[in-house]
Amino acid sequence: MSIQGFTEVDQLAVNTIRTLAADVVAKGMAPVAHVLWSRFLNNNPKNSHWYNRDRFVLSNGHACALQYILLHLAGYKVSLDDLKNFRQVDSITPGHPEVGITDGIEVTTGPLGQGISNAVGLAIAQAHVGAVFNKDGFPLVNNKTYVFLGDGCLQEGVASEAASLAGHLQLGNLIAIWDDNHITIDGDTAVSFTEDVEARFRSYGWEVLHVTAGDNDLNAIAGAIAEARDNNAKPTLIALKTTIGYGSTKAGTHDVHGAPLKADDIKQLKTKFGFNPEESFVVPPQVADLWAKKAQAGEKANAEWDALLKKYEAQYPQDGAEFTRRVEGRLPDGWEKHLPVFTPDQPAVASRKLSENIINALAPHIPELVGGSADLTGSNLTRWKGAEDFQPPSTGLGSYAGRYFRFGVREHGMTAICNGLAAYGGLIPFGATFLNFVSYAAGAVRLSALSHLRVLNVATHDSIGLGEDGPTHQPIETAAWLRATPNLEFWRPADGNETSAAYLVAIKSVHTPSVLALSRQNLPQLEGSSIEKASKGGYVLQEEQNADVTLVSTGSEVSIAVDAAKVLRAKGLKVRITSIPCFITFDQQPHDYKVATLPSGAPIVSIEAYSTFGWAKYSHEHIGIDTFGASGPYLQVYKKFGLDGEQIAAKVEKVVDFYKKRGVQVFSPLDTAL
Amino acid sequence: MSIQGFTEVDQLAVNTIRTLAADVVAKGMAPVAHVLWSRFLNNNPKNSHWYNRDRFVLSNGHACALQYILLHLAGYKVSLDDLKNFRQVDSITPGHPEVGITDGIEVTTGPLGQGISNAVGLAIAQAHVGAVFNKDGFPLVNNKTYVFLGDGCLQEGVASEAASLAGHLQLGNLIAIWDDNHITIDGDTAVSFTEDVEARFRSYGWEVLHVTAGDNDLNAIAGAIAEARDNNAKPTLIALKTTIGYGSTKAGTHDVHGAPLKADDIKQLKTKFGFNPEESFVVPPQVADLWAKKAQAGEKANAEWDALLKKYEAQYPQDGAEFTRRVEGRLPDGWEKHLPVFTPDQPAVASRKLSENIINALAPHIPELVGGSADLTGSNLTRWKGAEDFQPPSTGLGSYAGRYFRFGVREHGMTAICNGLAAYGGLIPFGATFLNFVSYAAGAVRLSALSHLRVLNVATHDSIGLGEDGPTHQPIETAAWLRATPNLEFWRPADGNETSAAYLVAIKSVHTPSVLALSRQNLPQLEGSSIEKASKGGYVLQEEQNADVTLVSTGSEVSIAVDAAKVLRAKGLKVRITSIPCFITFDQQPHDYKVATLPSGAPIVSIEAYSTFGWAKYSHEHIGIDTFGASGPYLQVYKKFGLDGEQIAAKVEKVVDFYKKRGVQVFSPLDTAL
Repeated sequence: MSIQGFTEVDQLAVNTIRTLAADVVAKGMAPVAHVLWSRFLNNNPKNSHWYNRDRFVLSNGHACALQYILLHLAGYKVSLDDLKNFRQVDSITPGHPEVGITDGIEVTTGPLGQGISNAVGLAIAQAHVGAVFNKDGFPLVNNKTYVFLGDGCLQEGVASEAASLAGHLQLGNLIAIWDDNHITIDGDTAVSFTEDVEARFRSYGWEVLHVTAGDNDLNAIAGAIAEARDNNAKPTLIALKTTIGYGSTKAGTHDVHGAPLKADDIKQLKTKFGFNPEESFVVPPQVADLWAKKAQAGEKANAEWDALLKKYEAQYPQDGAEFTRRVEGRLPDGWEKHLPVFTPDQPAVASRKLSENIINALAPHIPELVGGSADLTGSNLTRWKGAEDFQPPSTGLGSYAGRYFRFGVREHGMTAICNGLAAYGGLIPFGATFLNFVSYAAGAVRLSALSHLRVLNVATHDSIGLGEDGPTHQPIETAAWLRATPNLEFWRPADGNETSAAYLVAIKSVHTPSVLALSRQNLPQLEGSSIEKASKGGYVLQEEQNADVTLVSTGSEVSIAVDAAKVLRAKGLKVRITSIPCFITFDQQPHDYKVATLPSGAPIVSIEAYSTFGWAKYSHEHIGIDTFGASGPYLQVYKKFGLDGEQIAAKVEKVVDFYKKRGVQVFSPLDTAL
Repeated sequence: MSIQGFTEVDQLAVNTIRTLAADVVAKGMAPVAHVLWSRFLNNNPKNSHWYNRDRFVLSNGHACALQYILLHLAGYKVSLDDLKNFRQVDSITPGHPEVGITDGIEVTTGPLGQGISNAVGLAIAQAHVGAVFNKDGFPLVNNKTYVFLGDGCLQEGVASEAASLAGHLQLGNLIAIWDDNHITIDGDTAVSFTEDVEARFRSYGWEVLHVTAGDNDLNAIAGAIAEARDNNAKPTLIALKTTIGYGSTKAGTHDVHGAPLKADDIKQLKTKFGFNPEESFVVPPQVADLWAKKAQAGEKANAEWDALLKKYEAQYPQDGAEFTRRVEGRLPDGWEKHLPVFTPDQPAVASRKLSENIINALAPHIPELVGGSADLTGSNLTRWKGAEDFQPPSTGLGSYAGRYFRFGVREHGMTAICNGLAAYGGLIPFGATFLNFVSYAAGAVRLSALSHLRVLNVATHDSIGLGEDGPTHQPIETAAWLRATPNLEFWRPADGNETSAAYLVAIKSVHTPSVLALSRQNLPQLEGSSIEKASKGGYVLQEEQNADVTLVSTGSEVSIAVDAAKVLRAKGLKVRITSIPCFITFDQQPHDYKVATLPSGAPIVSIEAYSTFGWAKYSHEHIGIDTFGASGPYLQVYKKFGLDGEQIAAKVEKVVDFYKKRGVQVFSPLDTAL
């Protein structure tokens, strides 16, 4: 594609975007959008999932009208009617870009700072997959990742984390274009954002380029993008000076930030750009032509790549088959046979250690499994035997073919990057930190779930069981938050079989992220657990006919429930024990199975070292911790909070008496009308 | 205090810290700790709450053994026995520093990046209170804020956000000392953190100084601190090269990061530093002497300041009384009379607008109320009439006496800064963003609660009721997370009286943070609400004897519950309506009151536009949204999710039938054994 020789048609194309944008909601990045999409983006609108396409991310997602317009012009499945349905219920043009809703959208953006961080993940993914599969004469995977971002994204900590790592990783395939318009919702950036952004990005190891006439100078824009594209040594930030709402009478003010233009302003704008002020949603034929040619070029590029892949498959049949398997998202046959199975006579092991064993067992058999830790490798136990670090070769610390990431102390950036890795396709990413610090990444965890991305969060040190580090590190409310999040599996396995089940289901859940909450302390292998049963999310660990009480628990407290049951049985009570390692997975089971697992007829008591909030959906009475935790040796901390067999048994006796005295049939909380 | 002329006693004092540290857990910042605490910190260990004391923050809180040692040596209420009880249950020396647990600890740290961000808040607080109260010859408030931080803190996004704002605000009273030891838990910082930190901080507008011999050169350390202290134009970062675990045989490796030294290593270390290897927890008399003199100087400084305040009170009685009131944390008499009261005939108003009216009403009467928004001022409606921005005077945009903060798009930094503002004392800070983005600040919100800090989070656009912005901006799981957090008030008021009640209780809750969830859309003034009733956290809005059903709801859905009740009453059903604007406040009411509010005898159905997770503690059946939201005009979005009077009434009819058919007495979920 030529990147110079812009003609009047290009100017008309820019103005088309501007007037369409005025019809939707005004934004300022029309010229760079036109140049990037019409001359640089290597994509095929007829096949938006072409694996080697250039990725485009609109990190300032509130400007999505611009992206929908580009998708329409470029020939994706976005019609003028779709543009007219902007922000309407069940339209494919929602208020912020959502992957899976709109053809051609790569990642869900809008929450500021996420898109640029996803883009770092997309760029890492290309570097990695390219390093693994490319061969001499076969540049199978060599796409670029382009991002638009505004001042808002640059202020977000998550973006700082990801940008710092991108610099360290020398991601030359990443080009970020900063809409340097000096305007945010609060007005001029002078009120709060006066740092030297360019010096900051240089300090991260980025190249920084400038375009001063971003409202008009298509050639300068193209020159900067070309320079950035051809710089493979570093990521590049292009600082593009623009005027927000260019063409509007309110250009350059924050009045046009996110708010639609007034009708008379739209008219004068259209007149100014040579359009009929009385017409709306107009694409001049020359502009449609320009885009049709671009689409043809894209189809051709895709076809050439298909041919290249065919040749590759012929010359390297094994690599070719493996590449195709990964791109199509098929898991290797029989991978799940490598999951460890346990019997009760085996020794007690911390579930973080069980997790390490699983990662060790799976890593050789699932080569698309990639991941790392936010600087807690030795505590999270996430680095498998023989792992190579993902590092720029020049560091001498690894290579781009390496699968283990050193994320640094950057939890939010890590998870947002994992979202990008998952969105790229062909990879199953995980990130690791302490469970309590998954909340640092809450903004990105939410987007994993909303975007249906299979991201695994390995979250060790999952409760007061971590002991001495104390309440600053002990999750209390975290499980409730994650269990309340739609489309997110929060797993808290109780032993070896349950940990294997957690990984089994997490990896098979192609459209759902998981958080695996793992203990620091040792957990016994339970009588009654199995991978199959635990894979249902909940099951009866110890059945008892006509039980006086059902104890329901998760993770490290299941074995404490077993202790309590022993005390209660010694007093003649009949006790059923149920384990629910994953609420959302359990909730998906048939109603009868669920009610059989938490049956009517006797009170149900939950036991968990977390806030009791949320347990009432399964239990009548709840034993937990509704304050913050405490620092000390973990068994003493458990005792302090009443979480040992003796203290629990005493409470459960009270419960049994209470419901016996009440003398009314006890119904399972799952036996409801709605 | 002299800052030069270090003698052998100083070196002995450093070695005392080193050997004590080896007895607890080894760290590398002994020399700078000694220099700062013995020569610079203007504090009075006998009166740890002296208002004008220099603040010290250990942002790398995992090194708290160092801080406990310093507190012990300096004469705070930390004994050698307390040091020996390090990390034991109920000791005052927990695994990370906790404000309120240990005398002399200013803020709770450990979660990385928080301490440095709190320090920015502490520095803002000094600048503000000083600007308001200092007068010629009366430098009443002129303390400095010193922070220690490590590589981990520097990698965290929250610290980047706060540091950028600190540079913009030209906080010359802030001195951060970076333990530049090149080691994190994953090993050398070369694996993930190779950015040019100093260039980055200069890009923020900080001064950067160096000490290369941080293990030994006390004079150089003192020189750098003095230069930083005397630079009032900019915050300063001192890059201090140190060796982690200096003196240990494993010095300079990440083996000593957070792990205790082995016994033989401790012995050789003590020998190396001239201590008896067989003795533990030793403070040589010369060192004790040095610290006793420092403590005396602190007492004297405090006494001189007391005298200055007396003089100030005599010369400026009104300002003096006001200053003392604020420092003592007493609210102005009668402030609550300014809270607006509503009757049902008044028009519908969005609760974000009601909040604006309240801030307008209170700001003139509670001058210690300070706050701002993370770049959403016009949406959060948080800037009151006549507010002045808190800005460096040189910007021409405000002054340090200004009470309105422009936090920029930095949610996590904002809340961490608010924690610092609250910890300083004499201020009631608030920060504002959309409710969905409070989760960006989760790490800091948790610490507000754990640290018992009265921080108000004004969280507008609180549900699908925000409409067009769509699911990326619509909270679903957020309320569950906040309700599960100990010591946090999550308020979701339904109308004007409830909004006034939320502010009333939030401001009166001296040791508890609040999140005020406020609607974008208009809400009618409800028949049956009052400030007094809503202040209980939950109450019967519409009573009905022998009701067939109780509808329980919050916020914008209460008026929808009223609509549903109308439909149901038209069909002959008796309906009670209960509003629970704040779960944790309601939970604190007497048992009988709570059961009367959600009584036995009929099914209870919850109605809320959030995840139903957690409602079972109050209701038998739950109507809510257990998926993500949707983009569109808000009434259509409500309809899509079944949340209108008609659709709800249909479901409630089913519920009533179900329980009638069951024919068994229905008990309130609050009528439990435990």
